[in-house]
Amino acid sequence: MSEILDFDVAVIGSGPGGYVAAIRAAQLKLKTVVIEKGEIGGVCLNIGCIPSKALIYQAELFRSQPELQKLGIKLDLTEFNYEKVYLESRKAANTLSKGVSFLLKKNGVTVIKGNAVFQTEKELIIDDKQKIRAKSIIIATGSGPKEIPGFEFDNNLVMSSTDALLLKELPKSVVILGAGAIGVEFAHIMNAFGVEVHLVEMMPQILPGEDNEISELLQRSFRKRQINIYTSTKASGIKKGENSVEVKLETEGEQKSLIADKLLVVTGRVPNTEGIGLEKTSVKTDKGFISVNSNYETSIKGIYAIGDVVKTPLLAHVASKEGEIAVEHIAGVKTNKKLDPYGIPGAVYCEPQVASFGYTEADARKQGKDCKVSRFPYKGIGKAVAVGKSDGFVKLVTDSQTGEILGAHVIGSEASDLIHELLLAKSAELLPTDIADMIHAHPTLSEGIMEAARLSENRAIHI
Amino acid sequence: MSEILDFDVAVIGSGPGGYVAAIRAAQLKLKTVVIEKGEIGGVCLNIGCIPSKALIYQAELFRSQPELQKLGIKLDLTEFNYEKVYLESRKAANTLSKGVSFLLKKNGVTVIKGNAVFQTEKELIIDDKQKIRAKSIIIATGSGPKEIPGFEFDNNLVMSSTDALLLKELPKSVVILGAGAIGVEFAHIMNAFGVEVHLVEMMPQILPGEDNEISELLQRSFRKRQINIYTSTKASGIKKGENSVEVKLETEGEQKSLIADKLLVVTGRVPNTEGIGLEKTSVKTDKGFISVNSNYETSIKGIYAIGDVVKTPLLAHVASKEGEIAVEHIAGVKTNKKLDPYGIPGAVYCEPQVASFGYTEADARKQGKDCKVSRFPYKGIGKAVAVGKSDGFVKLVTDSQTGEILGAHVIGSEASDLIHELLLAKSAELLPTDIADMIHAHPTLSEGIMEAARLSENRAIHI
Repeated sequence: MSEILDFDVAVIGSGPGGYVAAIRAAQLKLKTVVIEKGEIGGVCLNIGCIPSKALIYQAELFRSQPELQKLGIKLDLTEFNYEKVYLESRKAANTLSKGVSFLLKKNGVTVIKGNAVFQTEKELIIDDKQKIRAKSIIIATGSGPKEIPGFEFDNNLVMSSTDALLLKELPKSVVILGAGAIGVEFAHIMNAFGVEVHLVEMMPQILPGEDNEISELLQRSFRKRQINIYTSTKASGIKKGENSVEVKLETEGEQKSLIADKLLVVTGRVPNTEGIGLEKTSVKTDKGFISVNSNYETSIKGIYAIGDVVKTPLLAHVASKEGEIAVEHIAGVKTNKKLDPYGIPGAVYCEPQVASFGYTEADARKQGKDCKVSRFPYKGIGKAVAVGKSDGFVKLVTDSQTGEILGAHVIGSEASDLIHELLLAKSAELLPTDIADMIHAHPTLSEGIMEAARLSENRAIHI
Repeated sequence: MSEILDFDVAVIGSGPGGYVAAIRAAQLKLKTVVIEKGEIGGVCLNIGCIPSKALIYQAELFRSQPELQKLGIKLDLTEFNYEKVYLESRKAANTLSKGVSFLLKKNGVTVIKGNAVFQTEKELIIDDKQKIRAKSIIIATGSGPKEIPGFEFDNNLVMSSTDALLLKELPKSVVILGAGAIGVEFAHIMNAFGVEVHLVEMMPQILPGEDNEISELLQRSFRKRQINIYTSTKASGIKKGENSVEVKLETEGEQKSLIADKLLVVTGRVPNTEGIGLEKTSVKTDKGFISVNSNYETSIKGIYAIGDVVKTPLLAHVASKEGEIAVEHIAGVKTNKKLDPYGIPGAVYCEPQVASFGYTEADARKQGKDCKVSRFPYKGIGKAVAVGKSDGFVKLVTDSQTGEILGAHVIGSEASDLIHELLLAKSAELLPTDIADMIHAHPTLSEGIMEAARLSENRAIHI
């Protein structure tokens, strides 16, 4: 281990936090290295957002069967094979992982495959072989599936989200513990392909963080599709059989148990802060998360942490933005970019889709906000009716006095894209009037955004 | 004809101009009547935007066959029947027409079915029976397919867009004259269902009004699908056979002719200003269009005209906005709403979709603007790659000095919705920076909008 490589910035991890930070650093003329022990692109690209969206897209194709049958088209599924769905998802993941490798190279970022461990606060050792010294080090090691005692992953009967993404064959039945975004997306995928799904959530609603009316509509829609939902329900234990697993549940004191081929546990994620030699530094942590200031610098000058290892929402786009802020701070770029916690969009790719930011109605009321709620249904959107996707609504929570947008919640077709017009209004401190007065192309789903804004001023047309 | 009904506002025509004007008038406490001689909702709802979007949605479903086959699903088309596609489109049109009737009623608007003719500048006669007197009259009679001498519609071999929308059986081959939005959408629909399509355009590009790079990509995509395209080509005449029609074409001096089952002529539309007794008023017209001021008031105080009868873009959403402006003027609402010609979005529902507003690159350069062009490809959008829709790009035309958004052009999946984030930025006088810095949910197509904005500041990540 003679050679020491010197860099301005070393980034540990090449997920959406790490690779964006590295590319941005290179753009800012910093000599940059990324160290990745797994696949380039991290969880998001390889075993997260991207392959799951490829599965979901195919689930939606698969779910179009009744519509095709309505046109007189007969479908023969005897040679349908879920492995082909899986393979398509791997293709998407591989294409994008290669794409990120290409971008890193194109931007002059050095990529080293291996496991990076802090040796000092300025030095990393890669696989006990290579030494790297960097003026700034960014920890972007992400997170992994959280294991609950008594429900340990066994890569067979008890699955993590990773296991579920990599299934080549679907079980006949599944119990999903946790109805957050990941649980709900898997419920959607598996149900679409004919799996008997039991979705269990400890909190009183699925998607516990979302506005409760959004959650209610999704719940109705899921129940119509025969997805079994158990809210306010705890799992107290499991009993494994040879090819099945029994899950014991407790709902408000009542016990029941479910037997299914597989159990999928998606109750949370834990930051990957072990095994990177953090103990060789004085970096402060808090319950496993790395403590940072608003530039994402840790308690040690020159060491930064971004993404799932810090205590902000575990979202790819949050990691990317944090990476950008950290790197611009390192480069001395003067900005006052800050992450507004009420301006972070979230999206869930079930059907109907869910997307939102800011205050839920309940949050706003709890905090004593004098707020107005405007709810515009997809049934009032011509395009939605024309294409048979009229399930959903746009819900705006605004300040009754000023009109300020406190939160926006969309459930329905293309919600994940539609939310951005509202978010731009919020982040640029525009008012519903600005959207309400703007001419929107007809017929588009975006007209629903316009109408929700008009509704908040009592001048919607189609309601 | 004894009774005279008195109203504050009488609206002639219940299309997207008329019905929106009427509802808005009712909201503003004006006693309002709408007179409609055809179906409630006008062309747009009944034989325009809405049924065509229903056909297009089904065309897209139909085109998903190769993707389904990739999953091992076999499709049997022997009982496929285009009439079912047609019937679905009628269902959508009827639902929405009924919806508008309901909205009019709910808002207290009187609806009279019949043909309205001016008797004086304050009075209309309906079907020679009923007399209506109104303080303000809004002409919202829309437009109809334009007939070209030598290519007259015969409701059989030579079709208008209305005829094409109402086909219960598709021809084996079609020549489409005119590659504007309507022509391109029918080319998309008919090709999707296996019709041999010949698309003829006099101008040097299909979608003549769009940015030429957008048009080029669409053209390549159409050619890949075996749509035959003839640009810079005039049709000089036709010869009808028993079940086919020969169309003579001339391309830069060269003659050729095409024989097809049907000819669809979609070269333009003409305002419906005949037969409404305009000659009984002193309302000024200009080449068939009614002349109006910026409040959509004609040369006669109290008579307004909106939508396709005035010389603004023939778009449903333009008509609606004009209706709103006219009514608010009538009601004395103080606004400074104006239609900015560079802020009107247009959308074409082919595949890939096209949406745009403002200056094309060529327009900007022609007008001597010091402009910057930023072109971000869908291939750089994770979601687009994950769902196999990576054909397309977002093109921004900005002022080199100030960053001001001069125009935006999107071709690709969901373009018609995505355009609105950019349009909001433009209409609220925001800059690309505002979009570039805003956190966008991952993975969404909207990230392509963010990246185009970042690109205009040389800080895109995924290119």
